[in-house]
Amino acid sequence: MTGDIHYTEGSITVPQGFRAAGVKARIRYDKKDLALIVSDVPAAAAGVFTTNAVKAAPVVLSAQHLADGRARAVVVNSGCANACTGEEGMAMAVEMAREAAGHLSISPEDVIVASTGVIGEKLPMDRIKDGITEAFRELSSRGGHDAALAIMTTDTVPKEALVQFEVNGTTVSVGGIAKGSGMIMPNMATMLAFVTTDAAITSELLQKALRYVTARTFNMVTVDGDTSTNDSLVVMANGLAGHGTIEREDENFYAFRNALEKVCTALARMIARDGEGATKLIEVEVRNAPTFADARKVAMAVANSNLVKTAVFGEDANWGRIICAAGYSGADINPGKIDIFIGDEKMAENGAGLNFSEERAKEVLGREEVRITVDLHHGTEKATAWTCDFSFDYVKINASYRS
Amino acid sequence: MTGDIHYTEGSITVPQGFRAAGVKARIRYDKKDLALIVSDVPAAAAGVFTTNAVKAAPVVLSAQHLADGRARAVVVNSGCANACTGEEGMAMAVEMAREAAGHLSISPEDVIVASTGVIGEKLPMDRIKDGITEAFRELSSRGGHDAALAIMTTDTVPKEALVQFEVNGTTVSVGGIAKGSGMIMPNMATMLAFVTTDAAITSELLQKALRYVTARTFNMVTVDGDTSTNDSLVVMANGLAGHGTIEREDENFYAFRNALEKVCTALARMIARDGEGATKLIEVEVRNAPTFADARKVAMAVANSNLVKTAVFGEDANWGRIICAAGYSGADINPGKIDIFIGDEKMAENGAGLNFSEERAKEVLGREEVRITVDLHHGTEKATAWTCDFSFDYVKINASYRS
Repeated sequence: MTGDIHYTEGSITVPQGFRAAGVKARIRYDKKDLALIVSDVPAAAAGVFTTNAVKAAPVVLSAQHLADGRARAVVVNSGCANACTGEEGMAMAVEMAREAAGHLSISPEDVIVASTGVIGEKLPMDRIKDGITEAFRELSSRGGHDAALAIMTTDTVPKEALVQFEVNGTTVSVGGIAKGSGMIMPNMATMLAFVTTDAAITSELLQKALRYVTARTFNMVTVDGDTSTNDSLVVMANGLAGHGTIEREDENFYAFRNALEKVCTALARMIARDGEGATKLIEVEVRNAPTFADARKVAMAVANSNLVKTAVFGEDANWGRIICAAGYSGADINPGKIDIFIGDEKMAENGAGLNFSEERAKEVLGREEVRITVDLHHGTEKATAWTCDFSFDYVKINASYRS
Repeated sequence: MTGDIHYTEGSITVPQGFRAAGVKARIRYDKKDLALIVSDVPAAAAGVFTTNAVKAAPVVLSAQHLADGRARAVVVNSGCANACTGEEGMAMAVEMAREAAGHLSISPEDVIVASTGVIGEKLPMDRIKDGITEAFRELSSRGGHDAALAIMTTDTVPKEALVQFEVNGTTVSVGGIAKGSGMIMPNMATMLAFVTTDAAITSELLQKALRYVTARTFNMVTVDGDTSTNDSLVVMANGLAGHGTIEREDENFYAFRNALEKVCTALARMIARDGEGATKLIEVEVRNAPTFADARKVAMAVANSNLVKTAVFGEDANWGRIICAAGYSGADINPGKIDIFIGDEKMAENGAGLNFSEERAKEVLGREEVRITVDLHHGTEKATAWTCDFSFDYVKINASYRS
């Protein structure tokens, strides 16, 4: 039922009735830095935002605007996070929404706002306004790629994905764009992702699908363990594909959720692969845990370990660091039962080392994608986390970004 | 009452009735790698060990040997962690204790064993035994420095400290040695620390003082957030100073605890300062938190942030990363009340940035010790954490250690 993942420059403007644009507002750098995404008709909408207690103004505002489960547009800037900017920052986020709403002749409450960039600096509102005006003029059903470019900060490649599937013979599209890199700036990273779909679905089920998918995709990505003040993931479903509305958890709901998970998995992997200074994607799969939460703890502890990440960068088969991270993860484990694989090469069995082939391990670690498997033999649940290796360039990028 | 801290080559052999040695057993490298520390008489003893669920054999054995609150000797090797080595590893740890006990004509249960080095490899028992024999022959009341050298792995300097104070006119000494560097190998770091004192104190109060001090010293150090499988801190108090035994929480107990805290703080700071690849010591002080646990969470989140640590390496006054880490720490905070200082320079007030002097900030960040203060204005408790900056060399050291 669910189709294949496509990495396409169409992405968010392939679903019926969505237009987008990305323009140069020159907020901080001479690059596209302001994006506008618009649904031609009111859309069911859902979002998840940073768990950081320090939340940027646009995050606070957008959560309020999504309370009614509806939205029409998203306006995003890169180059300035509008975080730790006090009441003035909140007023500026409100103004961004109002400005976009004015051009679109819709309610400001139907506009979602997101920002990413340096913390603690004020938005240059004149440039933001001019940028919104220009983006409005350039809105196009082929503008998804420009929007993907405009939300980039230290990302080295734009991140776009599309999945199409059928509901009762009608083709439905789910498209997404994202940015990542480090978890916070200059690195002004922050994870932002925007998904559009022409599926017809209630906002309650949209929110439910989004939470399920987020736990298994974006929340399983780590570049450096730092959670940004601005993380935002928003999905809009405008129903223009023309099938009957998905109103219960039936096969159509699962087909939709599956498509959403494929898009988000693809974007999440792209974010990990393009982490600051990364040379490799690392996929950590934890099998046979007592619960999903335990599997997740182990996967994230391994993925967050600087020592594991530097060992992969150095292509060193240091499985001791992997089992060590599993040990301090806080998960329910039995150390004497753990098996560890790098690629298909088994390094440890029942918690103790094996005589593995260093040559084959080196070959596996030399690839652009490295899979680490931790089999806990202590249950039936599993989880997968994605990260990147830890190179000299991570330090270089982060040692001086403001200057 | 409590005296000043001394950084001395005497350290653990200054207290009455302690002898030590450090010899080359050639376990992995051509350096001193086996240490023996002995009390001439039975001593009250207490220890704290790694919280990692994956515990090395010597950690498991030493916790058993300390159950009766008494010990006479510590035998330590560097170069091999004897972790993830199964039943054979446990048998080897038992043999190390037995071998030392044989030379000393004491019970193996009175010998504490510690190892640090590569995870998953077997101890070369012949070399270990020869090393113990040689160390026994070289035991001396001036051997503390050699023992400090023998427990080093990627440490660049030995770590020793001594404090003397008086109980009823009698001079009491507390000496300590430690190793650190990364939290696990090859970096075969692991935190090990051994403290000796000629104080007379019950093992219950010794354990109580040790737990109090550990929470405020060694547990407030982070180099890379990875908790080793081998961390061990052991203190022996043999009572040979000759004062009446400390049996209740009176002023003598607090004088002792204070001296112990000074020794452990000094060693903890040395470990942070000598973290893998470090160029600076970072001290993070959190003030006015609702509880010590909240203060600790914020201090450790800031100290563990790769982004904060790389910014300090780059001498960039990036306070946004500090408040971001406070936000995701999980502590009870009010983001709108937080003030942040780097050195004496106030960067943010009430959660928003100030126009600070970049020049003065640069000057403060150029020093070898950088103090970050986070004032939560949300209670009266405080905590201090120590870490180091994050440099290219951390990646270099950890990208290939086994090879």
